[in-house]
Amino acid sequence: MSDAPVEFFYDFNSPYGYVAAHKIEAVAAKHGRTVDWKPFLLGAVFKVTGAVPLPHVPMKGDYARHDFARSARFHDVTYNPPADFPFSPVAASRAVYWAKADGKAGEMTLALYNAALGEAQDIASPDAVVAIAAKAGFDGSALAAGLQDPAVKEELKTVTDEAISREIFGSPFMIVDGEGFWGADRFDMVERWLETGGW
Amino acid sequence: MSDAPVEFFYDFNSPYGYVAAHKIEAVAAKHGRTVDWKPFLLGAVFKVTGAVPLPHVPMKGDYARHDFARSARFHDVTYNPPADFPFSPVAASRAVYWAKADGKAGEMTLALYNAALGEAQDIASPDAVVAIAAKAGFDGSALAAGLQDPAVKEELKTVTDEAISREIFGSPFMIVDGEGFWGADRFDMVERWLETGGW
Repeated sequence: MSDAPVEFFYDFNSPYGYVAAHKIEAVAAKHGRTVDWKPFLLGAVFKVTGAVPLPHVPMKGDYARHDFARSARFHDVTYNPPADFPFSPVAASRAVYWAKADGKAGEMTLALYNAALGEAQDIASPDAVVAIAAKAGFDGSALAAGLQDPAVKEELKTVTDEAISREIFGSPFMIVDGEGFWGADRFDMVERWLETGGW
Repeated sequence: MSDAPVEFFYDFNSPYGYVAAHKIEAVAAKHGRTVDWKPFLLGAVFKVTGAVPLPHVPMKGDYARHDFARSARFHDVTYNPPADFPFSPVAASRAVYWAKADGKAGEMTLALYNAALGEAQDIASPDAVVAIAAKAGFDGSALAAGLQDPAVKEELKTVTDEAISREIFGSPFMIVDGEGFWGADRFDMVERWLETGGW
């Protein structure tokens, strides 16, 4: 059996990504796996596919707004999104790649997701991201510098390009040994794939 | 606690509707409910929303084709769709409304869904629908007449209009005491709603 990390692709605007971010680590750990946290820019993918954000889709948008909150409650996650939504996920995503070097991508992800979608905070600006991360125990001035690091910027670009080339059209998108699962409602399949290697 | 039937909206072209059709009766019965089988014309809804069938959506289409078969296997349902896909679901849907008068809408649904998506049979024509239903024990000549019954035709039109007005944008769509759930991957929520009346 493989021990490859579970790849977890998500956009910081995605309520379903937020819910899944609260679950993925425990699911992976249960099967001896780690999580490879891969924030990406879903907006860049939508430019390729022509998709529009869920809330703007006729009929489905109304359902989605209702279901975001309902899904969060179902999974015991606090949901309180910001008024300015969608927001730029660039700074938050870069912060995750900066934290990844120290193996803290998961902690950074949850700190920023919780602030944005759990406490309606702005995470669009680098300053906001630094303040939230500092409060969560990260070194704020190191992060402020890290957000300008060309290697960090490049990593977000590379993973977003990777998402496009691997046809990762939504968030969250979880990949177990090459098998992709889209959506926070697919943990039953993710678990069975981890257990059995496929069906 | 309500004992209202679980409303089950589906289109005969929908692989996820097909999978869910195999599960919904047992889920409802477990909670003392019956199922109100409501086939509708998803194509008419798509004309309103501007949506296109899943297989034609960039990137998502590739995922969907893979996931249709994977979801069917996950739920132990045989999946073998016809080459000519999507097909007209009108005759099959009318057959369900005809059978509904005798409380056999579920049996008719499964007979036709199994033929179409499990055995790659054509169910687009009234003749094909009658032949499949007759093989499943229905009165073929009565059904052939029923498919021309203005009341039967009207019922499909009425439920399709109802789907549009209730913003039922996809298939399957399950409604428990007014609460809607979209997708064959939402049975966990449907079950909890049936158990608890909401959360």
